[in-house]
Amino acid sequence: MKFYTDYLWFNTEKRREYIRITNQVRDALEKSGIQEGMILVSAMHITAGVYVNDNEPGIIEDLDKMLEELAPFGPEYLHHRTGEDNGDAHLKSLLIHHQVILPVTDGKLDLGPWQEVFYAEFDGRRKKRVVIKVMGE
Amino acid sequence: MKFYTDYLWFNTEKRREYIRITNQVRDALEKSGIQEGMILVSAMHITAGVYVNDNEPGIIEDLDKMLEELAPFGPEYLHHRTGEDNGDAHLKSLLIHHQVILPVTDGKLDLGPWQEVFYAEFDGRRKKRVVIKVMGE
Amino acid sequence: MKFYTDYLWFNTEKRREYIRITNQVRDALEKSGIQEGMILVSAMHITAGVYVNDNEPGIIEDLDKMLEELAPFGPEYLHHRTGEDNGDAHLKSLLIHHQVILPVTDGKLDLGPWQEVFYAEFDGRRKKRVVIKVMGE
Repeated sequence: MKFYTDYLWFNTEKRREYIRITNQVRDALEKSGIQEGMILVSAMHITAGVYVNDNEPGIIEDLDKMLEELAPFGPEYLHHRTGEDNGDAHLKSLLIHHQVILPVTDGKLDLGPWQEVFYAEFDGRRKKRVVIKVMGE
Repeated sequence: MKFYTDYLWFNTEKRREYIRITNQVRDALEKSGIQEGMILVSAMHITAGVYVNDNEPGIIEDLDKMLEELAPFGPEYLHHRTGEDNGDAHLKSLLIHHQVILPVTDGKLDLGPWQEVFYAEFDGRRKKRVVIKVMGE
Repeated sequence: MKFYTDYLWFNTEKRREYIRITNQVRDALEKSGIQEGMILVSAMHITAGVYVNDNEPGIIEDLDKMLEELAPFGPEYLHHRTGEDNGDAHLKSLLIHHQVILPVTDGKLDLGPWQEVFYAEFDGRRKKRVVIKVMGE
């Protein structure tokens, strides 16, 4: 059984950004040499997410708009009593989820035709990490 | 270490359908011969989901109603500039999540008494796939 | 390849509670002796969730408030035709998701500085379980 672990670093310019990371995941898979297994891609921060969906700018804006409606930036969250201003980012991260598992079959990411992996930053402009862990044979 | 990969095909009559697939997952587990491990069940399309909950028609309708409130079918999503009309289906998929992992213990799905696996179609009437990947020993 | 499976029992005093279980997951990891792999932490009931976020009382209240807005306790869900009164709890569980996967690297939970694992009870005052499955080498 083989394992390969890698970390991606992000430091976005904007507070919220959606960054495609499918190629970085594919690089980790190639370095691992694994033919069958799974890859965990998981945000290491509580104000960011990882998801799989379409690499189409419109749907990314639609997603951002929906998350802003469900957990808007601005109001006085109870979390802000700590001095933070990112309560919305925690809630957005929980709604979109912070991780995905990607199947590996015959040495390849076993994704559907339009599936791409995204890092969703909800409280950027600081250094943050994602862990990629490949596991299999 | 053993792996077993299978694919389920769907082509629903309605735009939105919720289909129980616990038995198909159990079949894959039996074919794998695995006694200890995990099963990834993951939609391969960006307008469908996979979730675990109750096989009770009322709660399935309640879920559909909530998703329609949070990401309704109809409005002009930005995604529709591409000619598509399924922006809501992408967002519903992201809210419900597109995958689950099921634990396998002593050769059986290690689920609680009411847990059932569902495929959630949000943009049906076309051929779509789910990957089932069993991994363990 | 090694596996270690453990179960946590809960019987909360309140209908809704958010309980930190990072230490129990770490205990399971130590008992497993696994150095590299993944841990599945998954609620075995359809009215509870498991998530990773901040152990800060304000954000936990903010999360509870958001879930109450999206799937409030009280209204007549269709699920209640069965005699149940917990339709909201099913929907809250689906929104927050019922499981997480934690990476294990060098014998340790490979979490970011503020990441803690939580059990989210949405229909308590009865005995309920979470499965912890450690898998690796």
